[in-house]
Amino acid sequence: MQKIPVGILGATGMVGQNYISLLNDHPWFEVKFVAASPRSAGKPYAEAIRGRWQLARSYAPDVGKLVVADANDVEAAKAAAKRGDCAFVFSALEMGKDEIKHLEEAYAAAGIPVVSNASANRWTDDVPMLIPEINAAHADIIVEQRRKRGWDKGFIAVKPNCSIQSYMIPIYALMQAGYEVKRMFVTTMQAVSGAGYPGVPSLDMIDNIVPYIGGEEEKSELEPLKILGSIDGGIIKNAAGPLVTAHCNRVPVVDGHTACVSLEFGVKKPSVDEVKSIFAAFKSLPQELDLPFAPVQPIILREEADRPQPRKDRDADKGMAVSVGRIRPCKLFDLRFVGLSHNTVRGAAGGGILNAELLKAKGYIQ
Amino acid sequence: MQKIPVGILGATGMVGQNYISLLNDHPWFEVKFVAASPRSAGKPYAEAIRGRWQLARSYAPDVGKLVVADANDVEAAKAAAKRGDCAFVFSALEMGKDEIKHLEEAYAAAGIPVVSNASANRWTDDVPMLIPEINAAHADIIVEQRRKRGWDKGFIAVKPNCSIQSYMIPIYALMQAGYEVKRMFVTTMQAVSGAGYPGVPSLDMIDNIVPYIGGEEEKSELEPLKILGSIDGGIIKNAAGPLVTAHCNRVPVVDGHTACVSLEFGVKKPSVDEVKSIFAAFKSLPQELDLPFAPVQPIILREEADRPQPRKDRDADKGMAVSVGRIRPCKLFDLRFVGLSHNTVRGAAGGGILNAELLKAKGYIQ
Amino acid sequence: MQKIPVGILGATGMVGQNYISLLNDHPWFEVKFVAASPRSAGKPYAEAIRGRWQLARSYAPDVGKLVVADANDVEAAKAAAKRGDCAFVFSALEMGKDEIKHLEEAYAAAGIPVVSNASANRWTDDVPMLIPEINAAHADIIVEQRRKRGWDKGFIAVKPNCSIQSYMIPIYALMQAGYEVKRMFVTTMQAVSGAGYPGVPSLDMIDNIVPYIGGEEEKSELEPLKILGSIDGGIIKNAAGPLVTAHCNRVPVVDGHTACVSLEFGVKKPSVDEVKSIFAAFKSLPQELDLPFAPVQPIILREEADRPQPRKDRDADKGMAVSVGRIRPCKLFDLRFVGLSHNTVRGAAGGGILNAELLKAKGYIQ
Amino acid sequence: MQKIPVGILGATGMVGQNYISLLNDHPWFEVKFVAASPRSAGKPYAEAIRGRWQLARSYAPDVGKLVVADANDVEAAKAAAKRGDCAFVFSALEMGKDEIKHLEEAYAAAGIPVVSNASANRWTDDVPMLIPEINAAHADIIVEQRRKRGWDKGFIAVKPNCSIQSYMIPIYALMQAGYEVKRMFVTTMQAVSGAGYPGVPSLDMIDNIVPYIGGEEEKSELEPLKILGSIDGGIIKNAAGPLVTAHCNRVPVVDGHTACVSLEFGVKKPSVDEVKSIFAAFKSLPQELDLPFAPVQPIILREEADRPQPRKDRDADKGMAVSVGRIRPCKLFDLRFVGLSHNTVRGAAGGGILNAELLKAKGYIQ
Repeated sequence: MQKIPVGILGATGMVGQNYISLLNDHPWFEVKFVAASPRSAGKPYAEAIRGRWQLARSYAPDVGKLVVADANDVEAAKAAAKRGDCAFVFSALEMGKDEIKHLEEAYAAAGIPVVSNASANRWTDDVPMLIPEINAAHADIIVEQRRKRGWDKGFIAVKPNCSIQSYMIPIYALMQAGYEVKRMFVTTMQAVSGAGYPGVPSLDMIDNIVPYIGGEEEKSELEPLKILGSIDGGIIKNAAGPLVTAHCNRVPVVDGHTACVSLEFGVKKPSVDEVKSIFAAFKSLPQELDLPFAPVQPIILREEADRPQPRKDRDADKGMAVSVGRIRPCKLFDLRFVGLSHNTVRGAAGGGILNAELLKAKGYIQ
Repeated sequence: MQKIPVGILGATGMVGQNYISLLNDHPWFEVKFVAASPRSAGKPYAEAIRGRWQLARSYAPDVGKLVVADANDVEAAKAAAKRGDCAFVFSALEMGKDEIKHLEEAYAAAGIPVVSNASANRWTDDVPMLIPEINAAHADIIVEQRRKRGWDKGFIAVKPNCSIQSYMIPIYALMQAGYEVKRMFVTTMQAVSGAGYPGVPSLDMIDNIVPYIGGEEEKSELEPLKILGSIDGGIIKNAAGPLVTAHCNRVPVVDGHTACVSLEFGVKKPSVDEVKSIFAAFKSLPQELDLPFAPVQPIILREEADRPQPRKDRDADKGMAVSVGRIRPCKLFDLRFVGLSHNTVRGAAGGGILNAELLKAKGYIQ
Repeated sequence: MQKIPVGILGATGMVGQNYISLLNDHPWFEVKFVAASPRSAGKPYAEAIRGRWQLARSYAPDVGKLVVADANDVEAAKAAAKRGDCAFVFSALEMGKDEIKHLEEAYAAAGIPVVSNASANRWTDDVPMLIPEINAAHADIIVEQRRKRGWDKGFIAVKPNCSIQSYMIPIYALMQAGYEVKRMFVTTMQAVSGAGYPGVPSLDMIDNIVPYIGGEEEKSELEPLKILGSIDGGIIKNAAGPLVTAHCNRVPVVDGHTACVSLEFGVKKPSVDEVKSIFAAFKSLPQELDLPFAPVQPIILREEADRPQPRKDRDADKGMAVSVGRIRPCKLFDLRFVGLSHNTVRGAAGGGILNAELLKAKGYIQ
Repeated sequence: MQKIPVGILGATGMVGQNYISLLNDHPWFEVKFVAASPRSAGKPYAEAIRGRWQLARSYAPDVGKLVVADANDVEAAKAAAKRGDCAFVFSALEMGKDEIKHLEEAYAAAGIPVVSNASANRWTDDVPMLIPEINAAHADIIVEQRRKRGWDKGFIAVKPNCSIQSYMIPIYALMQAGYEVKRMFVTTMQAVSGAGYPGVPSLDMIDNIVPYIGGEEEKSELEPLKILGSIDGGIIKNAAGPLVTAHCNRVPVVDGHTACVSLEFGVKKPSVDEVKSIFAAFKSLPQELDLPFAPVQPIILREEADRPQPRKDRDADKGMAVSVGRIRPCKLFDLRFVGLSHNTVRGAAGGGILNAELLKAKGYIQ
């Protein structure tokens, strides 16, 4: 099979690096176009990234040779598309929110689908915010999005914030099994890679934690409602629940966000054993479609008393599975558990790639 | 003033070391007797502790010269009491729970008051579990305790677990101001010093957290009820609330337990500004009595967005004040905040010393 | 090809776990026999290891089903050998040095070759201490070893301490190129995984380093002399040099030992550029034989100012390559550089596997 | 005694904060003037520092009320001097090296003595680079400095880089006792506070070390020669030795630089026991003068096998003493030891304060 050529917007940032690293040897996609800030533009990627590459795995030699385009220059991407080097882009842009919003729209208007990691378009009402195991059906709003905007091939699809990936799939698995989740307490302990590089100063992360991450609690409380929402009248309408309160903390961990969760169910309440069975058995569309980045089991159930732990569990199924443990009753609500996922894989670039795979399987990317 | 001579049971363990370090230059108390395991007995403390002292501050030279007694040998303590070297003991014993319970009773029966850090007697119904700012009145159950047991001078008083010290005083301040606290979610991020030495392996605390501490959640959920209880018929009866659910985690921090708290009030609910005023203004008996280890302000209010933090706030008022910040509404309950206290000072040896000061001020220790 | 069945002595310890994990899908070897302490004996491996497995990668399901033998019971291994489940063993025994020495000899005497990670037989004069890129020829002393001891198929071969793996191959590459290394200063900064589990307490590794590792400096100073020695009169005679002084430190790193090295050459001294060329070009027998665990390039040259770093470079070529950087003149001696290798892969189980591959290629293992 | 009013240049930076914190309750000096960048100028210090104060100890309320001046505006300092608020300044300026050099000269020319922490004037040949225990006599070059520059009251005195404070006093103690130190290998493991805030990214300091600190090795190799130099013809001439080679590393430690040192003596060589006696007995001028910040013993000898360690030893004698341990022979040179000092106290602000105390005792500051 001829691989689909993809572009990376924001290719020199941390998320951009993760896309490039994870797309190495991808069976469907191949990085043929990279764009970044004007500072990097015009240089071969290998030169632009010198001394800034943060990952243990290096980039592919072919990517190193790509000449970096200016991400603000949509014409460059159009030209790349014309010469067959850019069927769609992953957006890992790092600029002002409004700038990203307009730039992503300009790419889409130019006929280039945008699969975005940025938060700028998460609350655009005709843009799907996808977790393929949960709301693959939201992808179909792209038809309406294109119609309204007058776009033919282009569109925008986004993924939610990394902080919620450690518990949304488990929550959804329970809802799917017929248990309404009404209210939810979440305390997250989030890895520093979520803040990029240089990101969090080491003086804040040696013998310390920081009980605050700007904007993170708001995202954690609101995004679940859109993800669980439904398409109605050409837009995605929020679900009524679950109501969420979030406490977000930064801890000295490189990769892997951990969440302590308490759930209140509706009238029907599962037993601890039922919850375990539901988690262990859960599969969804990405598994049925056998998408390349889909974890075999989206939820990995750990029975040890002290798991999941970031260093030991974040890489489960190449970083795409959520690990869940400590399933036990809650004194105030009904159920407590600990969820963990890899924030730069499932929670960022890996999640974006899975979204693109879904969109290709559904025919929106060609 | 002639200082009161005190003994330390478990003088070579981590908590014992903290007692010895904190009692250095104490205005009322002076360490004149040390007891530990048979392995250490018979040696000067300086020799017994060689290579095991964990603290930055060293012990006083006079303590180094004390010959360590066998903590199992109550007669040794009686002899020390007789020669004027042991008016009471701090128990930092590390053995089986039943052994500690019986040994503490044997000391008390021998006329030696026991101010304990151990959990063994926390649920003995005529033993007060003291946080002097909250339930100083519980000390008076000692009269009944002595009567029932037939003890003249001896008694047992304990302190609660270190995990709850970061939020119990703030909670109490609100209750004191007339706001019933009905339910409470707590997620703790606890320092490794709470597990003693060698304690938590470094392989678990580099690039990692552990979302589990054996027995800690149970203690965190139950002990508040006794602390807030009342003396009734010669025993301490638990309060009916608040109901608590706790998620306890171990994080790579040397000292300082952080707690993320969500509170549900009764009918009457304070505003965020009222809460801040109540916290900032709170004082209690230890402050009135001007006890040596009493913090000037039991609750220190931090207004910065990202505080309190363990490394920066644990030493507030010599480690005896609780720092509180991020006071904001809760999406599900009424109020959220972050509390922090020094687990080996306020949460262990320092809290024990404050208990002893209270008991002296009330005349139970002489 | 039919895989060669191997046994792991000390299969539940940290090094044993690493062997099992690294041998997963090995093209030549297959774990068919596991032995550990009497405590684990008789249980399926999955049960014996429950709650003790420390690695992110799990063991193969087939290994989980193996019933653990008592490592002290050589007859059990003989029986396994007879039924075709144990052609040789990797020794990752954790017991007293003398016990290990005798036990390894007993296995060899029973006709079972021992490829050992333990230090017990490192200074036995007819036992080769192998780094295949350096002294593959030492393997041939096995002929003499068997003759003297009256062993037919059994033998003992060992690997050196993990602390020296970060610089011995680079040193050897320079010697090989004709530059005598006369004297050498080394300061190591070693990962905690080198101490096993529970190993180093977290209280020693948060906001701290420990400038001491028992026995490590002695090994670092002496072992190079045997490795670089020659077979003479049926024993391995130490080389006269290089003379080494080592400062060994423990730092808060999970995996990866870093070494700061200063070298004094003999009369002939290479330029910095020559050194770089020699390092980059170095290949040796394992590369020629294309052994499965041989790194493509034994030495990876990093040109960045601040590399190698443990987290970013330890996994180079699956943890089997040594990364070298900061090559620059020395103010006192001739050359300075920083070397880094993965202590539990190249420095322990991975190095042991490469030894076994060499010994198979040379016909000593069949 | 009326306290001497002092100013802090660069009062909002990390070193400036340390000066302000350490000068709290200083018996001789009182902070009455603070200057920083134009951004902070005009605001009360409490407002300028809001959200940027990094230390556990807070600043004094009176300092919080001082209105921050623009550090570039020497006239502001002159006015402060005239009204009795600034007898001299501590320079903790953070700008380009040339700018600092000229600005410090401008202050001195304006009659305001400058006691500097910056590196800008370290190699100005009539500026003393002081460690009071070693080269207090260098202070007397101020007479010549003033004469040549035509300054009456002003002058510049500096302190050396923090990296060398962990071993220079021990080295000097040995030289003082008659043992020439000819050559010296040093590997440092340096704390992150040395890089200021935000400084080193946490992604580089979790499960990692960085074997490189820009410019640090050069300073470590050269500055000892000036410190040990002599006044000759109105300038300080470098000593001929010791020759030093330094390997400088950044490690995940908040405060406290550790150094592994190997020394080669001249013909006369001390025994390990003599070295210990020399270290333990060493006292110098600051001790004789009983300067407030002088440690009682400049060198604290640790006999434990695994000390000194940063977290346990950096605060020795309020962070002003150097802790030394692991004194043992060197395989290549003569002696090995490990030295440790607090980099932001002895190595920065505390060292600057001790310099000012010496200069006051000698009459240069009034």
